Amino acid sequence: MKILIVGGVAGGASAAARARRLSEDAEIIMFERGPFVSFANCGLPYHIGGDIQVRDKLLLQTPESFLARFNVDVRVMNEVLTINRHNKTLTVKNLIDNVQYTESYDFLLLSPGAAPIVPPIAGIDNPLTHSLRNIPDMDKIIHTLEKNKPQHATVVGGGFIGLEMMEAFHQLGIKTTLLEMAEQVMTPVDKEMAGFVHQEIKSKGVDLRLGVALKAVGQLDDQTLRLSLSNDEKIDTGLLIMAIGVRPETQLAVNAGLDLGELGGIAVNEYMQTNDPFIYAVGDAIEDSDFVTGKPGLVPLAGPANRQGRMAADNIFGRNESYQSTQGTAICKVFDLAVASVGKNEKQLKKDSIEYQKVYVHTASHASYYPGAETVSLKLIYSPTSGKILGAQAVGKDGVDKRIDVLAVAQRAGMTVEQLQHLELTYAPPYGSAKDVINQAAFVANNILNGDATAIHYDEIDHLTDDQILVDVRNPNELESVGFIAGAINIPVDQLRQRMDELPKDKEIIVYCQVGLRGNVAYRQLVNNGYQARNLIGGYRTYLHAMC
Amino acid sequence: MKILIVGGVAGGASAAARARRLSEDAEIIMFERGPFVSFANCGLPYHIGGDIQVRDKLLLQTPESFLARFNVDVRVMNEVLTINRHNKTLTVKNLIDNVQYTESYDFLLLSPGAAPIVPPIAGIDNPLTHSLRNIPDMDKIIHTLEKNKPQHATVVGGGFIGLEMMEAFHQLGIKTTLLEMAEQVMTPVDKEMAGFVHQEIKSKGVDLRLGVALKAVGQLDDQTLRLSLSNDEKIDTGLLIMAIGVRPETQLAVNAGLDLGELGGIAVNEYMQTNDPFIYAVGDAIEDSDFVTGKPGLVPLAGPANRQGRMAADNIFGRNESYQSTQGTAICKVFDLAVASVGKNEKQLKKDSIEYQKVYVHTASHASYYPGAETVSLKLIYSPTSGKILGAQAVGKDGVDKRIDVLAVAQRAGMTVEQLQHLELTYAPPYGSAKDVINQAAFVANNILNGDATAIHYDEIDHLTDDQILVDVRNPNELESVGFIAGAINIPVDQLRQRMDELPKDKEIIVYCQVGLRGNVAYRQLVNNGYQARNLIGGYRTYLHAMC
Repeated sequence: MKILIVGGVAGGASAAARARRLSEDAEIIMFERGPFVSFANCGLPYHIGGDIQVRDKLLLQTPESFLARFNVDVRVMNEVLTINRHNKTLTVKNLIDNVQYTESYDFLLLSPGAAPIVPPIAGIDNPLTHSLRNIPDMDKIIHTLEKNKPQHATVVGGGFIGLEMMEAFHQLGIKTTLLEMAEQVMTPVDKEMAGFVHQEIKSKGVDLRLGVALKAVGQLDDQTLRLSLSNDEKIDTGLLIMAIGVRPETQLAVNAGLDLGELGGIAVNEYMQTNDPFIYAVGDAIEDSDFVTGKPGLVPLAGPANRQGRMAADNIFGRNESYQSTQGTAICKVFDLAVASVGKNEKQLKKDSIEYQKVYVHTASHASYYPGAETVSLKLIYSPTSGKILGAQAVGKDGVDKRIDVLAVAQRAGMTVEQLQHLELTYAPPYGSAKDVINQAAFVANNILNGDATAIHYDEIDHLTDDQILVDVRNPNELESVGFIAGAINIPVDQLRQRMDELPKDKEIIVYCQVGLRGNVAYRQLVNNGYQARNLIGGYRTYLHAMC
Repeated sequence: MKILIVGGVAGGASAAARARRLSEDAEIIMFERGPFVSFANCGLPYHIGGDIQVRDKLLLQTPESFLARFNVDVRVMNEVLTINRHNKTLTVKNLIDNVQYTESYDFLLLSPGAAPIVPPIAGIDNPLTHSLRNIPDMDKIIHTLEKNKPQHATVVGGGFIGLEMMEAFHQLGIKTTLLEMAEQVMTPVDKEMAGFVHQEIKSKGVDLRLGVALKAVGQLDDQTLRLSLSNDEKIDTGLLIMAIGVRPETQLAVNAGLDLGELGGIAVNEYMQTNDPFIYAVGDAIEDSDFVTGKPGLVPLAGPANRQGRMAADNIFGRNESYQSTQGTAICKVFDLAVASVGKNEKQLKKDSIEYQKVYVHTASHASYYPGAETVSLKLIYSPTSGKILGAQAVGKDGVDKRIDVLAVAQRAGMTVEQLQHLELTYAPPYGSAKDVINQAAFVANNILNGDATAIHYDEIDHLTDDQILVDVRNPNELESVGFIAGAINIPVDQLRQRMDELPKDKEIIVYCQVGLRGNVAYRQLVNNGYQARNLIGGYRTYLHAMC
């Protein structure tokens, strides 16, 4: 058995190691056109920013270590030019000596990854503009930083890499502008959740510009670019990072006549097999099916790539392991915040016309009386008919990864929000709460599903009618210190029973508090006293951040 | 509707608040024989140790705040003496003025909690010996500390409260002895996992004595006790904390003729209803059913108590919410470590003759190249027939709560270890790994289930026969720096292919490395070359800590 692997990072390296564990006899050759295999691509921004100080830490394996441990023939600086499916061979070019040669295979695994998208903007091809995909890209950025010591850098794109590069520059003391064409960073979450991230970014002094695109790049001198923006503003900057997204590397597959999916990734079946049964493909280059919708998706994430690589090796050896769709679980550190998500967001559900309900909670990451508790802001989206989890988003300084992980497991298991109420999660004051964030969110969702709560959401608050009355049930000092919604009457929840007759029974009472908890207490008092009422889910905190 | 509640902490307070949200009309009276309701009992040790500096932070609600917000008549210092089921009344004694009175109910909720067990040891009734259940207990301990400034304290019992009190004393600079009758602390985990905790405790200079019981207590003077131990040793100490466990408070229920379960807790059905349909019971006083075995259990934890209280209120109002059994998810901070568990441990499974398999992994809490990664040591126990999760235990300095939470959800959802492989958890270098601890554990378990790995466990290693050969596949410098198992031959994994002929084919090769990963690579090489082999699951790290 002879297995050739194209691409030596996450998916390819996982496949090679697994293949060797399954067979000592197989001949395994891994081609990588760059100089490195199995490097920590997720760590690149952190080496630039200085968190990871030693560059060698990013090199998880070398060709030599791979050979010693797994008896895999790793050929770096070798580019696969064509796949000759009829002969089952590859044509390969050694980039060192430019010699071309042919290598035969029984099975071929493609793990070529995805390439940064660089849009055709005038002047963008200049020595001060970079993308970040691999170690040589990183080295070039560091070289530019060291040589030019720029006072200002600009990052285009507010996704994972863009945000991480923004933080790296900020950490190096470089004034930074972040340009994002959309009205929010971090598209995996919805805008009101991204508001927490916007606030964090601005609070660090980064020049965040939303709804602004880069139109053209001019070079003033060796060390300065002049950026022209879609709003006709100009920015002079010493370094430009293009991080607007990636596209699957499919040229090799296309030239070989392999099928692409509707989104332009390599099409594979659940066994990671292309339309050629001797060719498998994994990772950022492929289209996988979405866990919620079953529709094809492009999800350039390391977790799926690694597991797909391992699975493809299993299947090359006849194991029939099937890939179980992608939830797109993701997380990003943005200064002191973590922002994470799983499943579908509201934007996507609307686009796909999938019916949903949502709740927001803002709850302490652990017992609030124990030092170090931080607020976890969680959005939970679920089906009003089945109660199943459609998606979740969380932001905060502590415990965000844990809550999204919990919901990722629950979603994959097909749990309903009814079942989430019963989750028994670790609790001691340093780690959680007797009623965890997740239990709380489930309680709110079930209150709505059971008719025990009538929700109003942040985006409806500014469009109330004359038949609605807005009541803020917080304490007066809270209104002063954190602000309030214009037009609200203030009746603190603990005075509501005594003062209820101040409210008219012929209007709908819209109740809100800081996070929605006291609002619910007030709401229940009102409806149990015969009022029409609704409670602002997530309270003033959600409303406020939707505007950030 | 008139609802009486006995006990004003976790379960009782949750029930009262929920009942009010369901009805404005209900009359709700909550009796508490102590001076406080709704206090943070889990926070008591942390106030003693100084982490929680302000005592008021422990008082989550007061009778006044409960009245204002929930219109609940909270009667502290009122002890319920008898339940008169025939009349549906309680006889109550006001402990301030000693006046007795009667209160009628439509529904009664019992949430009396559990009391510390104080064994009948000679001399134990003295002013320097304390238990810790509530605020007055805490105040007494603090008073003794302030008055006597003891140089030495002794804690009896290595459970949650015992460990937390040990840490509190250590933090206050008091020399501390921890006595535990069993061979391990933290009975929810198995001994080899407790070994990590023993090591941590000893490393902090605490005098840990396992397998030692307290036999008698003598008082030398106002400030000194002399403890006599089961091993005939004596300890002079200035303060003694008894924390060997709790027992359900059932006297009131027993006197009223309510049924107890086989373990001595109040018996309830899935609706939290006792054998009297007008009396519900929740929390530490009841017996609930175990999630894995369905057998009755006594689980004195705050999470179940809170959820049961809420559910009992629902059911009093006719909702038919059923409690979904208890997994016993728990966590404890022990100095820099967290130790956590869910489901059944090996000791319990053996006792119940339930068939199981187990794996150990020791994996970085997040990408090891990013600063701050710590090893998570995880034990996963599963059914070899169904593949379902029976239990899990984890220890480490970071990310332990998250991993047990993930497994708690997966267990509750009925997931198998096959399904755990596919979990898509949050990954970015500061938070996780592309193949998370959980994925890794699932890979190992599935390798065993699929016959891709043959396990040997730490407790078999010291009993190898002449037909077995022990091979350490780590690098020589690791053997020097962290130690090795006597009798092992050292062949580093990366040299094994070249040196395989040094090993005999007529013996079973027992392979081990530091954590089991390289061992698996070596194991696969050996079996794929026709050898008989087994790999030490969890490697030297598990073996070593089993002896701590």
